Amino acid sequence: MRNWLLPEYIEDVLPAEAFHIETMRRRMIDLLMVHGYQQVSPPLLEYVESLLSGSGSDMNLQMFKVIDQLSGRMMGLRADMTPQVARIDAHLLNCEGVTRLCYANNVLHTVPSSLTQTREPFQIGAELYGHSGIESDLEIQHLMLKCLAMAGLHQVHLDLGHVAVFRAIIKTAKISLEMETELFAILQAKDIAALKETCAGLKKSTRESLLLLPELYGDQKILDEARKRLPTHMDILSALNQLDMVSKELKPAVSTIAFDLADLRGYHYHSGMVFAAYAHDCSNAIALGGRYDEIGKAFGRARPATGFSMDLRELSRLVERSPYPMGIRAPYKKKDKELDLKIEQLRNDGQIVITELPEQPENTLNCDRKIIKREGEWIVEKIKFIDY
Amino acid sequence: MRNWLLPEYIEDVLPAEAFHIETMRRRMIDLLMVHGYQQVSPPLLEYVESLLSGSGSDMNLQMFKVIDQLSGRMMGLRADMTPQVARIDAHLLNCEGVTRLCYANNVLHTVPSSLTQTREPFQIGAELYGHSGIESDLEIQHLMLKCLAMAGLHQVHLDLGHVAVFRAIIKTAKISLEMETELFAILQAKDIAALKETCAGLKKSTRESLLLLPELYGDQKILDEARKRLPTHMDILSALNQLDMVSKELKPAVSTIAFDLADLRGYHYHSGMVFAAYAHDCSNAIALGGRYDEIGKAFGRARPATGFSMDLRELSRLVERSPYPMGIRAPYKKKDKELDLKIEQLRNDGQIVITELPEQPENTLNCDRKIIKREGEWIVEKIKFIDY
Repeated sequence: MRNWLLPEYIEDVLPAEAFHIETMRRRMIDLLMVHGYQQVSPPLLEYVESLLSGSGSDMNLQMFKVIDQLSGRMMGLRADMTPQVARIDAHLLNCEGVTRLCYANNVLHTVPSSLTQTREPFQIGAELYGHSGIESDLEIQHLMLKCLAMAGLHQVHLDLGHVAVFRAIIKTAKISLEMETELFAILQAKDIAALKETCAGLKKSTRESLLLLPELYGDQKILDEARKRLPTHMDILSALNQLDMVSKELKPAVSTIAFDLADLRGYHYHSGMVFAAYAHDCSNAIALGGRYDEIGKAFGRARPATGFSMDLRELSRLVERSPYPMGIRAPYKKKDKELDLKIEQLRNDGQIVITELPEQPENTLNCDRKIIKREGEWIVEKIKFIDY
Repeated sequence: MRNWLLPEYIEDVLPAEAFHIETMRRRMIDLLMVHGYQQVSPPLLEYVESLLSGSGSDMNLQMFKVIDQLSGRMMGLRADMTPQVARIDAHLLNCEGVTRLCYANNVLHTVPSSLTQTREPFQIGAELYGHSGIESDLEIQHLMLKCLAMAGLHQVHLDLGHVAVFRAIIKTAKISLEMETELFAILQAKDIAALKETCAGLKKSTRESLLLLPELYGDQKILDEARKRLPTHMDILSALNQLDMVSKELKPAVSTIAFDLADLRGYHYHSGMVFAAYAHDCSNAIALGGRYDEIGKAFGRARPATGFSMDLRELSRLVERSPYPMGIRAPYKKKDKELDLKIEQLRNDGQIVITELPEQPENTLNCDRKIIKREGEWIVEKIKFIDY
């Protein structure tokens, strides 16, 4: 067994990628901060009950568990930061009115979400608490698109969905929780055969509505189709109107928009509009989010909430990377005050200065300039590389 | 069981502290970068064998373990990043000559290192590979002090030790590995009674040397004392000379220096000079490091190495915190291009602008200014707070 081998779907981040991720991370946090989102950093480890509050069993399977030696209780390694940030809003900050929070840190998954994804995503996101209107959904969606554009992703396809449509059908038909869970799983998998079978025993109108959902994927026309063919329920109408309004607002900021009324991703905690952003030529969503008004309840304070998150490691693979800056090589001299001053000035200006160490072969790795003495003065000169 | 309770020695980082840590983190990474240290980010999880390579059993007890569902093997959550970065140097980068790396991320401990420490330190550090001379030790020590000064810690006490002294005594006396381990544990605990007992069966000169070590703690005089009373062994003399030289170089940068020849912290992987920085009024070292030339061997490439690390969460408690910047409140107006432009300009200048949302009470939380319209123009005005 070779010691340097890493587990599958676990990777080191080496300097070029680390520099890129660090740059994106800083710019996004700064962007979120000037929009009033305050950074919080919840722990990697918590009791399992807290981490699973308000979320579903899929999260439970995704989560590594360890025993707390101090309490004997089971702790989980966070697989998602949204429930943690909701806990902070509900319990620790406990502000009246609107609270805006953001976060950027690693999460861990027992198995990768897809064959191209890491088990250690670097999750960055923003959450807005305390406002239930569509304006806060829009603020969050605009912010997500600004973050993607800042990272260099300008051609974005946006999928919009609304959990209230499915919820209204289920509620009207008084479907049991057990069956709701089953229908949810089937719709997620877009398994039409199973959907037909499961719906067979239901009332005609319910059956027709549920069978219609997977077809309701596409452009603006889908909304008219849905208005015509879905039952006239206040929640459904309001959901369709929200989708209509939001898609018009976001149109200038994206390349294409599609509606997907069977998209129930994160249904366990989502309660309103959900959205996912896709890059060209990439089957996984690069950023996603939605409204989840119920999650704070588990922490004693249900609050309207909406937010988005993305994986910076995945994003860094999709956008162009600026190269790692080249440095300046400096000779090793003991107690040469002028040289030391020169080096310090260059470093204060943000230049990388790498000092040689005694008894080392001259090494110009990562450097395109060097400090040398010319006519009694230390100056910076380009390194002339010999062409082979 | 309340869902919002966190495990002991596990805490959330809330906005004021998160902002402070983020600021320190960025400034330190920038400082390390302009000194030629390239950031790497090893994974949170690795196979246990990799994480324990070259380190001792104390690390094993500090490490949370989980089973990898993909391979059935045991993985550990890193308790220290130094062995991971050594693995990257040895295997992935595989450069000839000097390599400089730095890192900043969370580590996890099963139990806190002391009653005042967290189980989730935020470890930041730098490592220099490929140079065995004292000049690289000095570079690393200077860098550590620069990092502390940049964070606002100017009064630093430095403890210097050298593992070679103990190693030379053990080697000369041909002491068994078993006994070496026992003596090491006793010296770490500074348990003089146990030391006397364990040394009883040893040769007189060895016994005297070992019993002397715990006394060799103090200022410059200790070095003379050690030269006089320890056996004349080349490694010991060279170690004492190194300590002498380094202490003279570092004197201007610290408030006090002490030598501690019984300090074997990290002995399992350290091989040369070790050092620890203390803040006034704080019993835990705030930053520590040393030389560890053997650690790469486990990854197929033994390289001279020296480095330091510190916990930014602990450091953030010791230094003065700059306050979270106050923001500007902006009214919610739909499609007011002039207002939108004003907000964007302010944000581009790095100002925090928090837009109100409809049907929300006016809220001046975290804001000391607001955008209002005066004579047809949007301007920024101070908020007048009413004195109660």
